[in-house]
Amino acid sequence: MALDNQPKREFKVVGTRPPRPDGVDKVTGRAQYGADVSAPGMLVAKILRSPHAHAEILSIDTSAAEALPGVKAVVTWRDFGPVGDTIIDIGEDSSPLADIRDNCLARGKVLYDGHAVAAVAAVSAEVAKAALKLIKVEYRVLPYVTDVDAAMKPGAPVVLSGRVEETVQRGMSENVTHYCEFGHGDLESGFEAADVVVERSFTTAATHQGYIEPHACLASMTADGKADLWCCTQGQYNVRSVCAEILGMEASQLRVTASEIGGGFGGKTSIFIEPVALALSRKAGRPVKLVMTRDEVFKATGPTVSTSMDVKIGMTKDGRITAASSHLRYSGGAFPNATVDMGAQAAFAAYDLKAVRTFGWNALTNRPKESAYRAPGAPQAIYAVESVIDELCQKLNLDPLEVRLKNAAKKGTRSSYGPTFDDIGLIATLEAAKAHPHLKAPLGPNQGRGISAGFWFNFGGNTCVTLNINTDGTVSVTEGNPDIGGSRASIGMMAAEELGVPFEKVRTIVADTASLGHNDITDGSRVTFAVGLATIKAARDAIQKMCRRAAAIWGIDEEAVEWVDGAARPSGPNAGQFPPLTLAEIAAVSFQTGGPIAGHHEFNADGAGVSFGVHIADVEVDPDTGATKVLRYTVFQDAGKAVHPDYVEGQMQGGAVQGIGWALNEEYIYGADGRLQNAGFLDYRIPVASDLPMIDAVILEIPNPGHPYGVRGVGETGIVPPLAALSNAVSRAAGVRLNRLPMSPPRVLEAILSKG
Amino acid sequence: MALDNQPKREFKVVGTRPPRPDGVDKVTGRAQYGADVSAPGMLVAKILRSPHAHAEILSIDTSAAEALPGVKAVVTWRDFGPVGDTIIDIGEDSSPLADIRDNCLARGKVLYDGHAVAAVAAVSAEVAKAALKLIKVEYRVLPYVTDVDAAMKPGAPVVLSGRVEETVQRGMSENVTHYCEFGHGDLESGFEAADVVVERSFTTAATHQGYIEPHACLASMTADGKADLWCCTQGQYNVRSVCAEILGMEASQLRVTASEIGGGFGGKTSIFIEPVALALSRKAGRPVKLVMTRDEVFKATGPTVSTSMDVKIGMTKDGRITAASSHLRYSGGAFPNATVDMGAQAAFAAYDLKAVRTFGWNALTNRPKESAYRAPGAPQAIYAVESVIDELCQKLNLDPLEVRLKNAAKKGTRSSYGPTFDDIGLIATLEAAKAHPHLKAPLGPNQGRGISAGFWFNFGGNTCVTLNINTDGTVSVTEGNPDIGGSRASIGMMAAEELGVPFEKVRTIVADTASLGHNDITDGSRVTFAVGLATIKAARDAIQKMCRRAAAIWGIDEEAVEWVDGAARPSGPNAGQFPPLTLAEIAAVSFQTGGPIAGHHEFNADGAGVSFGVHIADVEVDPDTGATKVLRYTVFQDAGKAVHPDYVEGQMQGGAVQGIGWALNEEYIYGADGRLQNAGFLDYRIPVASDLPMIDAVILEIPNPGHPYGVRGVGETGIVPPLAALSNAVSRAAGVRLNRLPMSPPRVLEAILSKG
Repeated sequence: MALDNQPKREFKVVGTRPPRPDGVDKVTGRAQYGADVSAPGMLVAKILRSPHAHAEILSIDTSAAEALPGVKAVVTWRDFGPVGDTIIDIGEDSSPLADIRDNCLARGKVLYDGHAVAAVAAVSAEVAKAALKLIKVEYRVLPYVTDVDAAMKPGAPVVLSGRVEETVQRGMSENVTHYCEFGHGDLESGFEAADVVVERSFTTAATHQGYIEPHACLASMTADGKADLWCCTQGQYNVRSVCAEILGMEASQLRVTASEIGGGFGGKTSIFIEPVALALSRKAGRPVKLVMTRDEVFKATGPTVSTSMDVKIGMTKDGRITAASSHLRYSGGAFPNATVDMGAQAAFAAYDLKAVRTFGWNALTNRPKESAYRAPGAPQAIYAVESVIDELCQKLNLDPLEVRLKNAAKKGTRSSYGPTFDDIGLIATLEAAKAHPHLKAPLGPNQGRGISAGFWFNFGGNTCVTLNINTDGTVSVTEGNPDIGGSRASIGMMAAEELGVPFEKVRTIVADTASLGHNDITDGSRVTFAVGLATIKAARDAIQKMCRRAAAIWGIDEEAVEWVDGAARPSGPNAGQFPPLTLAEIAAVSFQTGGPIAGHHEFNADGAGVSFGVHIADVEVDPDTGATKVLRYTVFQDAGKAVHPDYVEGQMQGGAVQGIGWALNEEYIYGADGRLQNAGFLDYRIPVASDLPMIDAVILEIPNPGHPYGVRGVGETGIVPPLAALSNAVSRAAGVRLNRLPMSPPRVLEAILSKG
Repeated sequence: MALDNQPKREFKVVGTRPPRPDGVDKVTGRAQYGADVSAPGMLVAKILRSPHAHAEILSIDTSAAEALPGVKAVVTWRDFGPVGDTIIDIGEDSSPLADIRDNCLARGKVLYDGHAVAAVAAVSAEVAKAALKLIKVEYRVLPYVTDVDAAMKPGAPVVLSGRVEETVQRGMSENVTHYCEFGHGDLESGFEAADVVVERSFTTAATHQGYIEPHACLASMTADGKADLWCCTQGQYNVRSVCAEILGMEASQLRVTASEIGGGFGGKTSIFIEPVALALSRKAGRPVKLVMTRDEVFKATGPTVSTSMDVKIGMTKDGRITAASSHLRYSGGAFPNATVDMGAQAAFAAYDLKAVRTFGWNALTNRPKESAYRAPGAPQAIYAVESVIDELCQKLNLDPLEVRLKNAAKKGTRSSYGPTFDDIGLIATLEAAKAHPHLKAPLGPNQGRGISAGFWFNFGGNTCVTLNINTDGTVSVTEGNPDIGGSRASIGMMAAEELGVPFEKVRTIVADTASLGHNDITDGSRVTFAVGLATIKAARDAIQKMCRRAAAIWGIDEEAVEWVDGAARPSGPNAGQFPPLTLAEIAAVSFQTGGPIAGHHEFNADGAGVSFGVHIADVEVDPDTGATKVLRYTVFQDAGKAVHPDYVEGQMQGGAVQGIGWALNEEYIYGADGRLQNAGFLDYRIPVASDLPMIDAVILEIPNPGHPYGVRGVGETGIVPPLAALSNAVSRAAGVRLNRLPMSPPRVLEAILSKG
């Protein structure tokens, strides 16, 4: 049996645009989301949340709530365990497990406005809400801090004690828990070699993932400790690991099924309500449904880090960067994290630099615990870097695209974060932008054009795929990653491509945790790459078995059979001796030739190729109101190989739109009381269709050598460039550079007016 | 890596009696049965059924029903397809697919009282019932036949035309569709060599499986033809194949999930309502729930064949059987089947005979289409055979047990149906019965003791198992057969045994059709044998991978690692060089050593060993009422190896109890109008706890050479001996032999009175 293991270049299915397999379910309302699953005897749960930004919990009295007719269970942090403080870290969430647990239900202190304190399960939502009012929590209010720079200063209110890592230098406040440093070369002589050095400071606001579906789950636990959990999540296996550990269960006793997901963008990689629902179900002995309100989603899930950053870049008159450094101060809210690592690594990744250094700190603030959001940490750092490069271009009167081309990272570049790049697509992407008519289109008064490059790592990770050949010649692919961006299509297409059957013959489903081995979360743009790769390998396993069956049918040696165009064929000296046996023909007789045929693959995938994008934005700024209108927007991005171009374009457009939101309007606004002021879509303004032009998407395909079809991740890179692209455009349209996001109309107006 | 492939004889987990994994779910009501699943926007369906035993359908007018507010869909046979009459046979159901389809919704003719004609989906059960009354069906009533002997006579009303197989001799009515013949040797000289020849005729009634849970399902199909189906079934993959074909879908477009099952006994291997629910959902565009009433279950599902049989046996004075023949006439209702084949093969399987012949016919009658029921076809034939042997013992004054011992089949016996037996347990089972105190216990007046041997083939079949090693050291086994008799326990125990971990570390789940490859129906006592074997092989696959990981950790050759007692150990020259790595230790680092670890196995299992049982029954017959009370009952049966003895004993007891029901009370009673008279548990009397003594179960273990642990199927053999054991006991207690089942009190009384 011979298999072609060379990179594939001619495709029959990959690269086409079949209708999406989940489309009809979603437009007809049949798709079941987190809140759509019910069970007989189900209770409804509600969560009591802190009204304080920071307070000690002196006591919680749940007796009156428990006595209310219809209330079946009330839980606080005491109902987690029995693992208690000996809890060990497992799962993939980058947070220590004890922090996830204490974020789900506060123990000792509440750390931010909206922090969960207790929960009730009752026969109806009305009863549960009434019970919440009967829970008496005695607080001792503490001073708080919500700004990252303020939090880092010695003497700032301490959010959590004893969490400072050894690497952090002394002299900062105890809120600074983490420090990192990346780079190489001699910064000092680099800056000396520059003709111009620009150093600027930037801030960005925390933004929320803004998924339309709130977190929702249904938990059902038996008296003997087995449990089922249905929830909307980006990673049912991580939910299983984390919940099992928090509840003191073994992983195999908890079966987690992922529902359809109404948006995640990284925010549904985290766990907020599932352990609470399980604890309530365990206590009540009945199924419990828990659905967050929008207000709760804003206050207690998501958001991104808020940041404060300094960037310094030196450049020669002809546009060569001589040295670059950045200082990044990120806060991911009340619990420690290391998101700044990714910002620090990504900051200068697009450039081939001799001297580069990035320093990063994480600081605790009295804000909700950060969740991943599309390329976590990267858009902020790259916004600052790409803004300074743009300002240098303005100062030196250089073409911003040419400057980026001149300094662009390429194959063989030692990246600013360490690894040396293999085949990468930045130069091809910049060349495509340079050749595009958008760059030459005329602009009117108060209009400006900005460009920015962007970068994301892309990940691989632990993956299991099973592929079954049905007797009717159809193929069932069983994978374990919730489909947040079209992966059922892309995975099914790769299975069809490898097996040589039409896409319509393949159905891909997302398995629950008991039906398939562990799969890492749907994150890091890993799924089409890693699950696709596992699917190709599982298909090859099945092909090998089908060739073996064909060999047995023909009575020839297994090695003398090859798989071409969806059929086993005698090869070598036997070539042409028997007519080919198609997949459907081999499947039809499989029960007579040894039984069902399946292919499997389990691995920890590496080789995910990094990805670059370049965005061009045209804006018009209204000088009377400061409002910015996006006139035209073009995304250029290297997909490695676009398996289903519609979805790739969708990812590129979606990333751009979310980045436009960050750039222009979205921010967490805290009042003087430390409470979130805009916990709703009316006050937290995400871009809607009428705010936007059609986002043009130009796919580049520079094959990833780590994947047989050349696939790279495409989901995250698109959110990285818009922040600087918009800021650079605004600086040209309005003649002012804000260096602060979002560039909401009052701020732009203020900048215009202060410019005079 | 070295694996012990020798038959295992010392067990740590297998043979113990851990608590059942589904126990708590079932006693607390959390387990979800067929009717427990719901979906948003769900409709309720009801079925219109024929009031006639046999009639031509002249027209069906559904317009008034469709016009009723709240009715969302009405279907008739026209809504199946588009395959129509070109439908091809697939799946495992022994019936032609067109018959299954036409039994689900009648086309052209109704063939029995209760035959489904049309179905309605509406917003409530009340509306659906009202709509049924508005459907106008014009019938032309036809003559009917419900008795098998009457049906075979030339000139009998013809149930279905054109279905006679070529093997059937001319001169019989067109209702005789199938003929079979098994045996060997010279009957004539065999009977001549006998001292006594007894020839008797017997009849048995159709009986119902009597599962407590009626058939129930929820179907949900989208506009693009994808569908989900939840149902209580013994085989979700067969449901998928059959429904997909009837509805004109591809198998991979239909995902079937088996619910918990409230009894099946073979009756839930058949398909009655699922295609109807799917057709309604397709038409209505909404999920549809369909739950049968008890009346519908009796009228239109199940039952067994009804039979008429002649058996002739010759015996020498010392108890040697010289020749044996039987003529079996079975009717499985209105559609052709070949159940008589199994009866004809099983009839004399317990005996080592030089001259034996069995002839079998199937005849159509205007009764519901037969379903499998525990050892289908065998209890009836063996009842007749074991009755005649008993009568010979009475006539020759021989010990019935010694006579069976003298003639018993053993290793090397050429069976009456062809194959030569390997290791079998009949003699050991008879010896165990002979040595048991029950056989010597005193009997009082009107009391009698009967014995009978029994036989069942046991099957293997197509099977897929996946086994995942979780990072916390627990193990998830994914299999595809609904657990009707404790298979989650027995399969998990075999996984634990093979892996060397405690049973509590293993959780076994029943996968849906999209999550695992095809598995044949839970039938033929195949699951603990075949799925167990696949599980052992999947565990060995995982062990091989774990040994490979250990070898890599130690930096030694993979071949130099062995798996002993749940851990990888260096072996050979490396023995003792490194401390063992347990499953949990290898699992904990699996993401760092290559990714998740799983084992898989897919095959078409053969090697299921045949199984024998011997039952002893003591009864007391009330001469004034004819009522028979079972005083004491002991079951001896060869399990090969009893994986979980509680469940094995449960199967032996359950089979005996059902057989006692057949023997004493259960029967389908048809009125002069051809309609079923007793479609409910008040009139169709199954044994209840107060009718029965504790059934004693004695497990024999004669290892099956086809299984590494020696496992044989145990689920069906137990229903085979009770019919004759009871009849033989009654003949001794009352002094009359009825040769007709059931031996209900009026019949026994009549026999006593007519004896005078």
